[in-house]
Amino acid sequence: MTFNELPAHVWPRTARREEDGIVTIGGVALPDLVEEYGTPLFVVDEDDFRSRCRDMAAAFGADHVHYASKAFLNKTIARWVDEEGLSLDVASVNELGIALAAGFPAARITVHGNNKSGAFLTQCVTAGVGAVVLDNAAELEMLDLIAAKNNMVQKVLVRVKPGVEAHTHEMIATAHEDQKFGFSLASGSAFDAASAAINAENLELLGLHCHVGSQVFDADGFALAAERVLGLVGQLHEKFGRELFDSFTVLDLGGGYGIAYTADEQPLNVAEVAHDLITKVGKFAANLGLPTPNVMVEPGRAIAGPSAVTVYEVGMLKDVHVTDEQTRRYVSVDGGMSDNIRPALYGAKYDGRVVNRFVDGDPTATRVVGSHCESGDILIDDELYPSDIATGDLFALAATGAYCYAMSSRYNQFGRPAVVSVRGGRSKLMLRRETLADILALEG
Amino acid sequence: MTFNELPAHVWPRTARREEDGIVTIGGVALPDLVEEYGTPLFVVDEDDFRSRCRDMAAAFGADHVHYASKAFLNKTIARWVDEEGLSLDVASVNELGIALAAGFPAARITVHGNNKSGAFLTQCVTAGVGAVVLDNAAELEMLDLIAAKNNMVQKVLVRVKPGVEAHTHEMIATAHEDQKFGFSLASGSAFDAASAAINAENLELLGLHCHVGSQVFDADGFALAAERVLGLVGQLHEKFGRELFDSFTVLDLGGGYGIAYTADEQPLNVAEVAHDLITKVGKFAANLGLPTPNVMVEPGRAIAGPSAVTVYEVGMLKDVHVTDEQTRRYVSVDGGMSDNIRPALYGAKYDGRVVNRFVDGDPTATRVVGSHCESGDILIDDELYPSDIATGDLFALAATGAYCYAMSSRYNQFGRPAVVSVRGGRSKLMLRRETLADILALEG
Ligand SMILES: Cc1ncc(COP(=O)(O)O)c(C=O)c1O
Ligand SMILES: Cc1ncc(COP(=O)(O)O)c(C=O)c1O
Repeated sequence: MTFNELPAHVWPRTARREEDGIVTIGGVALPDLVEEYGTPLFVVDEDDFRSRCRDMAAAFGADHVHYASKAFLNKTIARWVDEEGLSLDVASVNELGIALAAGFPAARITVHGNNKSGAFLTQCVTAGVGAVVLDNAAELEMLDLIAAKNNMVQKVLVRVKPGVEAHTHEMIATAHEDQKFGFSLASGSAFDAASAAINAENLELLGLHCHVGSQVFDADGFALAAERVLGLVGQLHEKFGRELFDSFTVLDLGGGYGIAYTADEQPLNVAEVAHDLITKVGKFAANLGLPTPNVMVEPGRAIAGPSAVTVYEVGMLKDVHVTDEQTRRYVSVDGGMSDNIRPALYGAKYDGRVVNRFVDGDPTATRVVGSHCESGDILIDDELYPSDIATGDLFALAATGAYCYAMSSRYNQFGRPAVVSVRGGRSKLMLRRETLADILALEG
Repeated sequence: MTFNELPAHVWPRTARREEDGIVTIGGVALPDLVEEYGTPLFVVDEDDFRSRCRDMAAAFGADHVHYASKAFLNKTIARWVDEEGLSLDVASVNELGIALAAGFPAARITVHGNNKSGAFLTQCVTAGVGAVVLDNAAELEMLDLIAAKNNMVQKVLVRVKPGVEAHTHEMIATAHEDQKFGFSLASGSAFDAASAAINAENLELLGLHCHVGSQVFDADGFALAAERVLGLVGQLHEKFGRELFDSFTVLDLGGGYGIAYTADEQPLNVAEVAHDLITKVGKFAANLGLPTPNVMVEPGRAIAGPSAVTVYEVGMLKDVHVTDEQTRRYVSVDGGMSDNIRPALYGAKYDGRVVNRFVDGDPTATRVVGSHCESGDILIDDELYPSDIATGDLFALAATGAYCYAMSSRYNQFGRPAVVSVRGGRSKLMLRRETLADILALEG
């Protein structure tokens, strides 16, 4: 692969390097978008996003897929997810607020979180959300009371910690015991919580939930978690009998489907994993004499991640003597850790390309850095890039659709970049650029 | 030290635990502030902030101290810094914009950055900033042209990489060779840049700049950097002669003064370090036959950091069996990595206390976590806290004035906390809380 090729499994599905060297997405030339909207700019490929919704729907069934909105959410995204027939996961008052503002049907919203407040739970109940995922005992009691006060029965899932350590970055592996989410399977507290939910007057337990981690490539983790959680279902079956299963049908295995950030990575094959997982779950259930549950999933990254790129303008260049024998070229771009904290936070890698022309020249050890006043402000740590990348070039990172804008900060008082969607040769502003006026608007 | 004491070298200078167990800052009870402004809440002790400005002024001379606004900036802060007679460092268009909006005198503003755009440099020149710190050769040429076009002579410093590796976290150590900032001393490019600045028609070189890192406790790093940079001054002296020194007087040694985040840390003694540094610089200069330069410094953290606390409300509690022998209590608060990314990003530690009452009970292994949908959302990793911390308590982290609000994100669509200042029994809103409406205001 040369620097001018775009690895198809990393870049948005409609991304093309045209004959003049310019990269288009959704039929729109990135330099034209930059002319209109400036840099840094997030460009979201609508066809890509929707097609990944459909892939997930084909693999698991549309009504079994929840898009995890924490990866990236705004009103347009919520509408796309709705139109594609998927459900939505939210994890905060404002995520719920954005979804409702977009007109997303509350009944297809599931609510997560380790620390939901009474006010948040009340809003969930009165809005009529499809399910609340219970994370701890106090919340269970509180939600039961709130539902009672509102003369409602709130549907719930119980979040279980199956004790599976997914092979992923430590900070985003969430099913081992020593973390904040869920009820422990091993200690029996998950059994107690599920029992309490079944017995609670104003709660209806739809099933169990777990989430083994994010950016997972080893699908065995999902199957192992499913097997363990089904063991708990078996115990509940013994205690409560078969009639339980009229409503108790959900086995929600969470998100975490790994994507390719660089040319040498391969995304998890969702269709294969789904087929394998559903088959295994069917067998596990049969072995336990249980009805086959509905396998639900909550992908965030695997839907939003590959759909967007971040376009920067190249600024200052600098050749640094690292040792007597080794130099490194520093390429500065006009964004950085404020719009993409993942390299600094998780050591994440990205695929970067010049998108306004073909570039050539000798392979040169290059580090792409942002404009923040911090030496850890690195976007791409160490790659061999052609030597003729120049000031004024447009440089884009692929697969920035998930957890980039969503985690963006105002470090050094940078305003957030604009976000545009593209499709069929047209662009549309999703989120306008933040300005100094927006920042000053908070002054007391 | 018991859990109910407040380590005076970590907490704001006016913080007190009153006899009823309530913590006051600036004479204002934190629970009263929470009642008025909600949680999470940043509380800035105005007397503390100003007193640290004065300490720095006493140590180095007021006109030798630049407050590094990247640590924390809004209009009120800019005004305090102005009133205390310090100068201001900015590192982006919007930092400059906020300072100017606050009426900060442009002549006392110094501008940093590895990737200043032509538009930014033009704004610096037309606003009349006191100095631009040149970071690379292309910028030097560009600024000279812009100044010429505006019939101005722009004062500048040249940023030098002295190759000193400060003993601090890797990501915030910025004077070693393999990073993006400045001109290398070792390679001769710093000499070339300073020479070019001296020769440039529309630039006036005031001196040299370096910055060895942040949260530095080993003051020898400053002295070593000073000695090396003075060596370069000596070379320039030989080349350009004594007349150079009419305007070439500045030795800017940057920021980085370490503060105490936890009870067992000790802040760098600024007065001592200043005395020692100024004495050494005098000797170094004398040995080289040079006039004694004006030692400038750019503290950010050491001024803003200890002046503020973040107050959270305690939500859900959970006891987790880590191993058969070990349990850990998880205490959830209603903020997290969105308002303080430093634990996740740098492994930073904090001093946390319950501030609405005395708490007792057996020492219990406790982890304080935020409300984000991510297991790495940890504020305090592992401390022994009394067992009776309860839902509804107010829990505050000290020393959150620098690089917390400044780096805050909207992860999970959390709005930014409100920020209030306190002094003499009164509070004043500095920055109002961000709302769902603020988030939706960006929708295209
Ligand atoms: C409960 C839950 N569901 C779904 C997700 C989405 O994960 P991903 O974006 O990796 O698919 C997360 C992310 O951490 C999560 O915590
Ligand atoms: C050039 C420069 N000056 C000053 C500072 C402020 O550092 P601190 O807040 O550690 O004092 C920084 C921070 O990185 C910096 O890069």
